Amino acid sequence: MSERVSFENDYNTGCHPRILAALTKTNAERTTGYGLDRYSDEARLLIKDACRAPNADVHFLVGGTQVNFIVAAGVLKPWQGVLSAETGHVNVHEAGAIEATGHKVLVVESQDGLLSADSIDQYCQSYHDDPTAEHMVQPGMIYLSQTTELGTVYHLKDLQAIRQVADRWGLTLFVDGARLASALAIEETKIDLPALAEIADVFSIGGTKCGALFGEAVVITKDSLKRDFRSLVKQRGGLLAKGRLLGVQFRELFRDRLYIEIGRHENDMAAALTEQFVARGFEFYAPPMSNQLFVLMDESDEKHFWERAVFERIGIQKDGRRICRFVTSFSTEKAEIDALFAQ
Amino acid sequence: MSERVSFENDYNTGCHPRILAALTKTNAERTTGYGLDRYSDEARLLIKDACRAPNADVHFLVGGTQVNFIVAAGVLKPWQGVLSAETGHVNVHEAGAIEATGHKVLVVESQDGLLSADSIDQYCQSYHDDPTAEHMVQPGMIYLSQTTELGTVYHLKDLQAIRQVADRWGLTLFVDGARLASALAIEETKIDLPALAEIADVFSIGGTKCGALFGEAVVITKDSLKRDFRSLVKQRGGLLAKGRLLGVQFRELFRDRLYIEIGRHENDMAAALTEQFVARGFEFYAPPMSNQLFVLMDESDEKHFWERAVFERIGIQKDGRRICRFVTSFSTEKAEIDALFAQ
Amino acid sequence: MSERVSFENDYNTGCHPRILAALTKTNAERTTGYGLDRYSDEARLLIKDACRAPNADVHFLVGGTQVNFIVAAGVLKPWQGVLSAETGHVNVHEAGAIEATGHKVLVVESQDGLLSADSIDQYCQSYHDDPTAEHMVQPGMIYLSQTTELGTVYHLKDLQAIRQVADRWGLTLFVDGARLASALAIEETKIDLPALAEIADVFSIGGTKCGALFGEAVVITKDSLKRDFRSLVKQRGGLLAKGRLLGVQFRELFRDRLYIEIGRHENDMAAALTEQFVARGFEFYAPPMSNQLFVLMDESDEKHFWERAVFERIGIQKDGRRICRFVTSFSTEKAEIDALFAQ
Amino acid sequence: MSERVSFENDYNTGCHPRILAALTKTNAERTTGYGLDRYSDEARLLIKDACRAPNADVHFLVGGTQVNFIVAAGVLKPWQGVLSAETGHVNVHEAGAIEATGHKVLVVESQDGLLSADSIDQYCQSYHDDPTAEHMVQPGMIYLSQTTELGTVYHLKDLQAIRQVADRWGLTLFVDGARLASALAIEETKIDLPALAEIADVFSIGGTKCGALFGEAVVITKDSLKRDFRSLVKQRGGLLAKGRLLGVQFRELFRDRLYIEIGRHENDMAAALTEQFVARGFEFYAPPMSNQLFVLMDESDEKHFWERAVFERIGIQKDGRRICRFVTSFSTEKAEIDALFAQ
Repeated sequence: MSERVSFENDYNTGCHPRILAALTKTNAERTTGYGLDRYSDEARLLIKDACRAPNADVHFLVGGTQVNFIVAAGVLKPWQGVLSAETGHVNVHEAGAIEATGHKVLVVESQDGLLSADSIDQYCQSYHDDPTAEHMVQPGMIYLSQTTELGTVYHLKDLQAIRQVADRWGLTLFVDGARLASALAIEETKIDLPALAEIADVFSIGGTKCGALFGEAVVITKDSLKRDFRSLVKQRGGLLAKGRLLGVQFRELFRDRLYIEIGRHENDMAAALTEQFVARGFEFYAPPMSNQLFVLMDESDEKHFWERAVFERIGIQKDGRRICRFVTSFSTEKAEIDALFAQ
Repeated sequence: MSERVSFENDYNTGCHPRILAALTKTNAERTTGYGLDRYSDEARLLIKDACRAPNADVHFLVGGTQVNFIVAAGVLKPWQGVLSAETGHVNVHEAGAIEATGHKVLVVESQDGLLSADSIDQYCQSYHDDPTAEHMVQPGMIYLSQTTELGTVYHLKDLQAIRQVADRWGLTLFVDGARLASALAIEETKIDLPALAEIADVFSIGGTKCGALFGEAVVITKDSLKRDFRSLVKQRGGLLAKGRLLGVQFRELFRDRLYIEIGRHENDMAAALTEQFVARGFEFYAPPMSNQLFVLMDESDEKHFWERAVFERIGIQKDGRRICRFVTSFSTEKAEIDALFAQ
Repeated sequence: MSERVSFENDYNTGCHPRILAALTKTNAERTTGYGLDRYSDEARLLIKDACRAPNADVHFLVGGTQVNFIVAAGVLKPWQGVLSAETGHVNVHEAGAIEATGHKVLVVESQDGLLSADSIDQYCQSYHDDPTAEHMVQPGMIYLSQTTELGTVYHLKDLQAIRQVADRWGLTLFVDGARLASALAIEETKIDLPALAEIADVFSIGGTKCGALFGEAVVITKDSLKRDFRSLVKQRGGLLAKGRLLGVQFRELFRDRLYIEIGRHENDMAAALTEQFVARGFEFYAPPMSNQLFVLMDESDEKHFWERAVFERIGIQKDGRRICRFVTSFSTEKAEIDALFAQ
Repeated sequence: MSERVSFENDYNTGCHPRILAALTKTNAERTTGYGLDRYSDEARLLIKDACRAPNADVHFLVGGTQVNFIVAAGVLKPWQGVLSAETGHVNVHEAGAIEATGHKVLVVESQDGLLSADSIDQYCQSYHDDPTAEHMVQPGMIYLSQTTELGTVYHLKDLQAIRQVADRWGLTLFVDGARLASALAIEETKIDLPALAEIADVFSIGGTKCGALFGEAVVITKDSLKRDFRSLVKQRGGLLAKGRLLGVQFRELFRDRLYIEIGRHENDMAAALTEQFVARGFEFYAPPMSNQLFVLMDESDEKHFWERAVFERIGIQKDGRRICRFVTSFSTEKAEIDALFAQ
């Protein structure tokens, strides 16, 4: 497999060279543990600045599944559930992490991985109108990810409409930003960090899939969710002893525009892939927008590309075409794309 | 509302007169607590006899939701979920009780509330074939109810096929018998208690909806599920201090064929209702088989009947027709049916 | 065993004759389910009147363990625990029900089963002063029972002092009233229902051990705990389908002073027992105050009484003396006491 | 604080230079995720070799609290608890992580942080003899750590005796090896990795406190605990996307004897500290054995050392002396010790 290029995912190498350099440079320093060190302090400030959210709380956790269930645990009442698209990571690929914290994932109709304000509103209206509502799981939080599991993105007006629905029904709005760098680099969405911080009650800024060795920043803007969050993180295994590793990494990502640059690079590489696939007449399972492409290909094409590259097949359509996922990362090189399409 | 007759549900009166008499007769006796009394002992023996399952363990719990989540807690590994029809009580009407014990409800395609061996098999095959299976919730238990939430019933060959699929994939088979009396009274199913005890790993025998004040018997036939079940029941709030109340009731239901007779009466009354509705040209949302009918009616008919009786509307079809549930119980009288259809 | 009298516990018979009569009288009536019937409505009003707490919410649950873990689930944040005496029912005899809802029981120093304001205050101060506090379980709720597991009782000034400590540290105060009838009948405590409703944020009024077949009323006075409590009760298996059974029973207990009368009878019988034991020179493990006595006796005395009566031995002291529990109930008769001490 | 030396803990720097070099060298390689890469494979083999346990399963997790609650979740039945010393990390410093998975920590008498076979045996005997045992939490797993929270260590005969008690009562034996390197370097204990693998059902090999950036290896020797462990790890947030980071680090630690060497260095530095403290007449709260020292000092001495070094005060004795913890790590230098005792 070593000779094939890889578009398997955006976490198949180590970290961005600048992050490695920062970790190396600080390796011998002694700091206190659990994220109370000066690097974590600086990183928190940089993120709050980038979000123009001076009153936000910022926490650094290790992984994305961890972020999602810890946020759910902190936000929800025991009888509440999480509204999610059927394709939502919390619904499919976290081995029941949300349920293991005691909460049901409530599947709301979605399109290309995207929830709509209307579908959420109808779900809540229907719950509210049901005479047996108190025997059902109460919607408590909206979970959505930017970008989605299908690589699509929300635009500002989409999120604003969802925010209104959240307010109407008293829901907390949580945005999973595991691949936020890629989304932020798409200017047409009009969602930058300050916009996100204004709309979401809590959101994450992914490191793992955006150039870091690991790590997700959780930004809490809603006051009532801030209290004792560190205790919850500790309890659920998310408080890293050498917390400064997270601080050093996020400080590097947010010292300048490295985070956005990584997103832009991912998208540029994905656009180059898309161009090639389109030129060859391939269609897509979901519209290509960010650093994940879902290409439809028949068995022989899949075989052809599989000899050249590692990628994931996420399913087979009824027409027999495979849904093949190609992902770009901070470390994807143009040469790898060329190699994929070499004769 | 007092002048209208009621087909609201099968738990809208107290208990069968024979049960009341038995409770009254034993009221002053002193016995030990928590189901270790002689009435509970007798009731357990009677149920094991009726099931021809001398090695089964029988426990008495208070309510059905309790039964479902306690069985799930006892059966499942932390990373496993419960396979259920979308309409399954555990999926819809238990306020997330299964999730509150840490487990996901995995919805399997169903027809009229009935699971099929094939749909379960396909679900498990698909899980097994998925390269990311270990990131997904593992199917661990099949939950089905006899009768279903839509009043339909499994036949012997259906359950046998499901048993085979359970064996193929290592699943525990749990049958929720909240309305088992009604199902047992339908001889065409060929599922009597011994057949059920042979096929299911664990099942419940409902009291609440079949003539008792309250109470569900849980019959465990699979040895590995027996150990320490009482501790689990205690922990989850299901161990009644005056446990003999459950013993006295189930002893009465199983001393002779009272339990089946109650089921037969419920079905007879439902058949009489069905006949009247059919005669008036009404259609049904699901085929009428047991003590729950789901009649489709337009707004004016609903209004007409609502003036005469209490019943539940469980939804509205796209064609505008209401899905109205009529339920009969041990205490339903022919006069009430006449009153419903009186001009 | 049938010839021996029984002081095994206060739930070894059925219910008070008046309750049985009420259940019998209402048995055939049709009502709606889940406690939304008129009997439950009346009972709630009667209890609010008795508590002089018109704004309280009153819920009826089946059992005491259920009450305790549901209240804990409703009150606590995920990272909080329950402060309890070592002897507290939640700490010892609920098979880990509190932990199964995700919360630690934090043991606070106690005397004869009684917590003191000081010991709670010191515990909280110590947590607060610990530099690693966020790595520890945060105290969130005080659990105490009136009467305690050792039959002792809190006086008004005790509870008032505990209330102050609760306010100081932001703790919810929950009083488990499984044996509240016995406590209310002790006028010296100066704690009647209105006093309790004023001091506690939430408390239970036990039925099971005070003359009912089963049932505990939960009274919530703190507004923030009221919302959606019925959904939580449903989720945890505490919402009885034939909820009116609870309404009918508590209506009977609170229609007049039956509840207090039952408590008084229990205490009178216990006092008669105490007198006899004292007259024979027996000492007590905890001061006899209510309907539970803990008599210290050597092996031969234990044998002597065991031939005459059923009772529980809860332990053996280092000096070899047995700690034997004798409990009186609504149905204890003077003749039984005479039989115990007959030569 | 930057001028003071630090004995605050064993995770206050980055990682051992050899680990940093290995991470740097492999940084640009593309591998598959979630620990299915070749580095993780190699590391697993090296650990199994070192343990002489070819049939063991080895998993890499991020942190120690995570290890403890995931193992508990995998081992225990819902009604079982964890036996631990009062000082056990699971009992005190994990913010209720065990309880958040639904299990009670059962405190067993201990001495200097060490459990004894006898105290465990007595606990289980007492549970077993209690007539209300099924209302209590059943012991299911022994949790102990090597070294303990007080820096003490078990000897081979201690663990062998505990193993016998575990077998007698059907308990799983779990050894938390967060600081295992330090313990392994103490040859007098006669517990090397093969001995540990033979005695324990599951144990961890700590990386975080023994030279790694982060990471704990979990070694499962008991077959029944192996199944689907990765799903459980994923569900609880312990499956690192870039899992090869753990593989690379543990491969480096176990390629030769680096792991033991780090332990030896820690112990040597601790011995040097001990010597100095002893020479100055200080006493210890627990006998100094490994890389954690608990020195008793009065207020003025504490102040004296606090001006020179960072360390933790974990409590104050009744005699007023402070219990001050000094910890050495792979990166502790002789010069730092000299600085601590400089005039």
